[in-house]
Amino acid sequence: MGKLSGVGVGPGDPELLTLKALRLIQEADVVAYPAARAGNGVALSAARPHLRADQELLPLVYPVTASPEADLPSYPQVMRDFYDATAEEIAAKLDAGRNVCVLCEGDPFFYGSFIYWHARLKDRYETTVAPGVSSIMAGPAALGVPLVLRRDTVTVIPGTLPAEELTRRLAGADAAVVMKLGRTFAKVRAALEAAGVLDRAWYVERASQDRERTLRAADVDPATAPYFSIIVLPGLEIP
Amino acid sequence: MGKLSGVGVGPGDPELLTLKALRLIQEADVVAYPAARAGNGVALSAARPHLRADQELLPLVYPVTASPEADLPSYPQVMRDFYDATAEEIAAKLDAGRNVCVLCEGDPFFYGSFIYWHARLKDRYETTVAPGVSSIMAGPAALGVPLVLRRDTVTVIPGTLPAEELTRRLAGADAAVVMKLGRTFAKVRAALEAAGVLDRAWYVERASQDRERTLRAADVDPATAPYFSIIVLPGLEIP
Repeated sequence: MGKLSGVGVGPGDPELLTLKALRLIQEADVVAYPAARAGNGVALSAARPHLRADQELLPLVYPVTASPEADLPSYPQVMRDFYDATAEEIAAKLDAGRNVCVLCEGDPFFYGSFIYWHARLKDRYETTVAPGVSSIMAGPAALGVPLVLRRDTVTVIPGTLPAEELTRRLAGADAAVVMKLGRTFAKVRAALEAAGVLDRAWYVERASQDRERTLRAADVDPATAPYFSIIVLPGLEIP
Repeated sequence: MGKLSGVGVGPGDPELLTLKALRLIQEADVVAYPAARAGNGVALSAARPHLRADQELLPLVYPVTASPEADLPSYPQVMRDFYDATAEEIAAKLDAGRNVCVLCEGDPFFYGSFIYWHARLKDRYETTVAPGVSSIMAGPAALGVPLVLRRDTVTVIPGTLPAEELTRRLAGADAAVVMKLGRTFAKVRAALEAAGVLDRAWYVERASQDRERTLRAADVDPATAPYFSIIVLPGLEIP
């Protein structure tokens, strides 16, 4: 039987792969990667310069990635069926004795789809997870603004939470990072303002990627914020 | 003038350096690293296999790393003096036209001492920060236990906080990671219990390093927990 690996490839820059990620990718017979129907995604583009020409590529194409479909009552079942079916595609390669590497944007266990494949496959196959650089580290590096020091806490908050919970979490945080922006940006901006932290919040779009952009959160046009952007709220102890 | 870089070298395993970290280290004339008086520290040991023989090493030796000295009223001033003096040591190398790389365990801007040198030097020298893999990613990977998914938040909590605040933060968290354990462990364990989350908490010691150890938090002998260990509390949405 082949071996399974979930490999964090970092936030997008092919130079932000670890040496371990590189080794696991190069040892794989099959390189699987999550992708939207519209394109190949960040994970593949970060890993692409490191692939061998003889490796089999296995795209795992999400059936739904955005509203309105993602808001339908059928969405959870559609996604469970997708993870079940793609887990069996991966399992078939492993059963054929081929090593499979699943590329994961950022870190595999930090809001990563790999968690769903891992749950379905970890008890059946030898599984390795290689941690990766997350955008919560790459964003502050891109800004040149430190995130947290000493006795401050850091709270990582999905922008998909309801407005009141966003505000409550931001008001109670020391340092914070808000992920999953895009169409949630106007709500997140209002929550930053309601929590009284908009003035010290930063915005990073596509950290480490070609079209990286950094600005003050207060200066962002909500209509322009893509999903792959984050808010960085530095802790109070930063000098 | 030389260039300054703060380079995240990850949690300890030399294979968890990024390609960017490797490049910046190899481009440096001077490799600086924080160290305790008792030893060279994790940052140097992670980077050591990647150093060139002709590079100058510059240890930045903390004057104080633990109680009882760290609890004295003089501690903040002692540390300010240390960062001032070592920043000038780094500046002298940069002024001499030498590139200086400061090795940072984990990520430079995530509870890293580099933040203090960065504050003193960033306006005087061209400065690059290379993000690194943090123990909050390496711990779950070592456990084989995912940290967080979907709409759960993650709170990162220093174990040095007072007991009541630890309990309050843990009780209000979805997923959480507690860092800076060691002599704080008994207090942290009591807070996990008071917050009602001890049963789903994991413990990781020296993630990715030679003497890595993982167990249920409830099974840890408080007397044996070193500073470089963390508590991992997976989110509620993990399948």
